[in-house]
Amino acid sequence: MKKVVAGVDIGGTNTVFGLVDKTGKVLAEGSLKTTDYPKINDFVQALTTAIKKLLSTKKEYTLIGIGIGAPDANYHRGTIEHAPNLAWKGIVPLADLIKSKIKVPVIVTNDANAAAMGEMIFGGAKGMKDFIVLTLGTGLGSGIVIDGKMVYGHTGFAGELGHMTVVKDGRDCGCGRKGCLEAYASATGLVRTTLELMSVMREESPLRDIPPSKLTSKKIAEAAAKKDPVALKAMNDTAEILGFGIINSIVFSSPEAIFLFGGLAQAGELLFAPVRKYLAKNNYVLFKNTVKILPSGISENNGAVMGSAALIWNGISD
Amino acid sequence: MKKVVAGVDIGGTNTVFGLVDKTGKVLAEGSLKTTDYPKINDFVQALTTAIKKLLSTKKEYTLIGIGIGAPDANYHRGTIEHAPNLAWKGIVPLADLIKSKIKVPVIVTNDANAAAMGEMIFGGAKGMKDFIVLTLGTGLGSGIVIDGKMVYGHTGFAGELGHMTVVKDGRDCGCGRKGCLEAYASATGLVRTTLELMSVMREESPLRDIPPSKLTSKKIAEAAAKKDPVALKAMNDTAEILGFGIINSIVFSSPEAIFLFGGLAQAGELLFAPVRKYLAKNNYVLFKNTVKILPSGISENNGAVMGSAALIWNGISD
Repeated sequence: MKKVVAGVDIGGTNTVFGLVDKTGKVLAEGSLKTTDYPKINDFVQALTTAIKKLLSTKKEYTLIGIGIGAPDANYHRGTIEHAPNLAWKGIVPLADLIKSKIKVPVIVTNDANAAAMGEMIFGGAKGMKDFIVLTLGTGLGSGIVIDGKMVYGHTGFAGELGHMTVVKDGRDCGCGRKGCLEAYASATGLVRTTLELMSVMREESPLRDIPPSKLTSKKIAEAAAKKDPVALKAMNDTAEILGFGIINSIVFSSPEAIFLFGGLAQAGELLFAPVRKYLAKNNYVLFKNTVKILPSGISENNGAVMGSAALIWNGISD
Repeated sequence: MKKVVAGVDIGGTNTVFGLVDKTGKVLAEGSLKTTDYPKINDFVQALTTAIKKLLSTKKEYTLIGIGIGAPDANYHRGTIEHAPNLAWKGIVPLADLIKSKIKVPVIVTNDANAAAMGEMIFGGAKGMKDFIVLTLGTGLGSGIVIDGKMVYGHTGFAGELGHMTVVKDGRDCGCGRKGCLEAYASATGLVRTTLELMSVMREESPLRDIPPSKLTSKKIAEAAAKKDPVALKAMNDTAEILGFGIINSIVFSSPEAIFLFGGLAQAGELLFAPVRKYLAKNNYVLFKNTVKILPSGISENNGAVMGSAALIWNGISD
């Protein structure tokens, strides 16, 4: 029998899952609408039934574990805790609930940690022992690997770099505090910076014709690609503050590489070039030219499923 | 034969060393003036001769290793590299030079990492797997332990939290950059904050009678103890910014405790109380009430020697 792992990515709207072999190949996949299951027991029933159904199509494989990426997940306890974007309130013992239906090891952690594990096992961080993945989407998530091991910390919640304070008394953050990195260096942060610049700058810009509620990081990146001065400055300012966040991470753990992933990272060199420029300019001297800034080596497509599966494949040698 | 370790702390002015048993007891100690040895080979000769002399007074002990804390030390390479405060320029292969004179394992790392190792093996972090030591002296040094292991990073220089950027375009730092944590949260930083406050506030203060070049963190702490309003506000502002530095470390590695060590930490509750207050106020919600702020459990007296020795004792089980 060949071995296979189920990778599951639970999002506020959709849950995607798949069977992943040891090379990272997704053999079969499926999805559920998370919001269809306001009761956790119903969700677990639907998810485990769907995984069993996928397995029944791959009779030559035996399931050796289930890896799950989810918001506000606690690795030590196998729980989802007080997730504001999910219907399941309080502390949800997700790993135990799933193990009661399918008797294999279950590992739960947040989606950015799963992305980092995917990068290490299947992506651009193969062979690296010290690296950080930043997921630049609606918020800023992070997964940190030090000396070959994911950092979970005393609480199991380590790696919340989006909530590093970068500007004292700065922008309101969704967490209720002010000046967090994710209020600047994320897809949403880029939109906010663009709005701020439209108030400061006098240059014309096609972005001024888009209602703020419809403005996206993608539209800003497209304008920047056409050399729109407002969009270019927004990219530059976002890169500068992301650079400070990256430097504050480098002085902590001195990684070999930082991987940028997610919607904002899809701006490509429009973001990467100024990030590298500010890193060269502002980094602490001991760490100059020691850190690579890289795009993820995993496709955005099924990266979440591969990353979640990697939680189980990590440490399995045969 | 009982086992003993030599712990060595190399400072810009003095080098102290001692023989430390597995309980952390310093059996014998000595010191050299670092500045008497502008040539590294002369220094190594003098140091190894002095260690052998100490050993000759403790015939019942056998030396099993030498641990060294030094500025700008690289753990991976066993070197001191481009240390601005030492006469030895370039890259000094310290571990190899010492091993050529005394054939035992030699571990070299920076002094704050040695302090953290001392805390873990002999001090208040016994039994802890995730903690950070901040040494608040002329600068701000740090030693980071994650999952029971010291963080050295890809380069061997990890743990430079003093050079986290906390204020964009802020105070000049000795490293040539601006707004580093150590320009605010250190003994020197407290003095700078006090000078700034004397320009802003109108209250009388005995600190106004001291020439700035003679102002010290000790004098400011003494004034704060007597409720001098300038000194109290300086302590408070220092604690607030140190609090942001601590929070930025917590979101990274989620430690169980942060230990404060060094000259500024000797202000005791005048510093600890406002640090705890700002941590309660400003910490990210997932980590509230998860982190203890503690004084070091090692005496300042021979803490450096004990910490350096702990580099060797760590991992030795018998």
